[in-house]
Amino acid sequence: MVSKNFKKNIKNFNDSIVKNDILKIANRVLTKDNLAIAKLIRTVEEEDPAGVEALEYLYKFTGKAYIIGVTGLPGSGKSTIINLLIKHYRNQNKDVGVVAVDPSSPISNGAILGDRIRMLEHSNDDKVFIKSIATRGHYGGLARSAIGIVNILDAAGKDIIIVETVGVGQTEVNISEFAHTTILTLVPEMGDYVQTIKAGILEVGDIFVINKIDKKNPTELYYNLNSIIKNKENRKEYFVWIPKIVLTDSLKREGFENLIQLIEEHKIFFDTYERQEYLKRRVIQEIRDEVLNYFENFFENNFRNYIESNVFSKNCINNELNPYTQSKDILKKLIIKLKTNNL
Amino acid sequence: MVSKNFKKNIKNFNDSIVKNDILKIANRVLTKDNLAIAKLIRTVEEEDPAGVEALEYLYKFTGKAYIIGVTGLPGSGKSTIINLLIKHYRNQNKDVGVVAVDPSSPISNGAILGDRIRMLEHSNDDKVFIKSIATRGHYGGLARSAIGIVNILDAAGKDIIIVETVGVGQTEVNISEFAHTTILTLVPEMGDYVQTIKAGILEVGDIFVINKIDKKNPTELYYNLNSIIKNKENRKEYFVWIPKIVLTDSLKREGFENLIQLIEEHKIFFDTYERQEYLKRRVIQEIRDEVLNYFENFFENNFRNYIESNVFSKNCINNELNPYTQSKDILKKLIIKLKTNNL
Repeated sequence: MVSKNFKKNIKNFNDSIVKNDILKIANRVLTKDNLAIAKLIRTVEEEDPAGVEALEYLYKFTGKAYIIGVTGLPGSGKSTIINLLIKHYRNQNKDVGVVAVDPSSPISNGAILGDRIRMLEHSNDDKVFIKSIATRGHYGGLARSAIGIVNILDAAGKDIIIVETVGVGQTEVNISEFAHTTILTLVPEMGDYVQTIKAGILEVGDIFVINKIDKKNPTELYYNLNSIIKNKENRKEYFVWIPKIVLTDSLKREGFENLIQLIEEHKIFFDTYERQEYLKRRVIQEIRDEVLNYFENFFENNFRNYIESNVFSKNCINNELNPYTQSKDILKKLIIKLKTNNL
Repeated sequence: MVSKNFKKNIKNFNDSIVKNDILKIANRVLTKDNLAIAKLIRTVEEEDPAGVEALEYLYKFTGKAYIIGVTGLPGSGKSTIINLLIKHYRNQNKDVGVVAVDPSSPISNGAILGDRIRMLEHSNDDKVFIKSIATRGHYGGLARSAIGIVNILDAAGKDIIIVETVGVGQTEVNISEFAHTTILTLVPEMGDYVQTIKAGILEVGDIFVINKIDKKNPTELYYNLNSIIKNKENRKEYFVWIPKIVLTDSLKREGFENLIQLIEEHKIFFDTYERQEYLKRRVIQEIRDEVLNYFENFFENNFRNYIESNVFSKNCINNELNPYTQSKDILKKLIIKLKTNNL
């Protein structure tokens, strides 16, 4: 959500830079320069190697932001919750970044942008940086560039970074591994959803928000959730967070203070018991994503066209050959090509 | 959904086979032997190389089944629709296979099995083979083994294969690329969902089912969907399927004949205009998945422990080093190791 003026500025800004300036841009990110932040994010999104160079440089300045994941099905009131969180942290004079990972079209490769009306009120606040990204690529859940963008916002001194994902299953798990505190938003109608996910739901949310309780009685969902949580509590190990439930009425804005308090509680718990393990897990995830991303790009850049144009795909179609045998052949070719490729 | 007796039989069966028998098992799959089908599916799920060997052999017997994707959010009535489809095709004396891809826990790596009560009535019908699989691994959407399992069921002479996925965004897209006809199930409450996905929804469903219309008035959702479809229709190119909407009342089982008729309509359209392009796309997807899967496994088997145990991950945590630089280093090591690895 950026103003017209900002868009104009960034256009001029883009025209004026050259690639060698990437470390200059990175240094401007450290001074909280929103134009530089936007530019560097774009570089990372475009998978420009210069983006990785900047991330390598900026990494030592990261680790200070508190990352809050907000996940849930469409229509469960994520935007409202995020908007209230932004307000709360701005009232505390904290810098806030938001990364919204949207489901996107595989054809247009475009994210659903520009319509997050409820966040618009922050668009003229230069201490709030909101970025929507598409879930490109075939890795599940978090968009490839999401972690990079969080690192940029972190280096840029954001105190709070909110990562919004629309999720079922795997996506939610990714964000809960990546955020410090994860909020899963639900609405009373989602009793079936909780039934489907069952105990798996405990892995994706530190705090469950049952939203829109004005619209439907939340008793059934609350009861289901609570019995899943109690089940965990009975097997309680020390130093394990027991997820909390909070009921909110987005219209009347009731229950929201309770949510804020639970976030603070979880933050203390996280810093005391979870942070060391989290850091290790996250570094491994970051390395893994970078490595597999490299192979995926290498395959797409070197072999997709080869497969599409090669006659054997026609043979596969006619069942004379088969993709299993062919993939072994492609793999051999790919490894030979990898050897001669400079990293 | 298998009977106790079946489970006992397959246990004995497993104990009695050795790996070299994989082609014997594959040949028994061709004779519609349910024990052999179950065994081979397990082999593929376990990523046993023998499974790939069997798939290479069986591929030439595939391509006869009609694949119907059923996708939608939890609680949108997928199981009910699938159950009715099974009944319908069984009444036509067709063999039916069902592959249910469930969100799963990353920790237990277990799928949510055993509670698909509404499908239980088919459990003693040996012409219906139902398999639930977990969404393991980090590739989005379809579980790695889903395509392999569909190929096994196809070779085993299933006339209809139903693939159920729980999805938002990317997952739905994957299944719609892979199925011949994709049904997206919605309930009247999901107006917000459709608003979020917008035109992207046209890419994921050939037929939209608005289910549970007994519970809430579907007018708003119908209107939203219809205007998105009309928008596409106005830009109509020849030979492009215009998605259809069907209203169903699962309790009274109303609207279901309409759904069946629309599936038949789409099948004719698919066979006439879409099949050639589909076959090409699917072969490319199958090759791509096999290749990237190989790299993912290679990384996990050779480098995850290395990263976890290596001191530099501690250095990363202390921000002395960073995962971007380290991933380059890992990548170099990985490629060296790939060279010496026999495929």
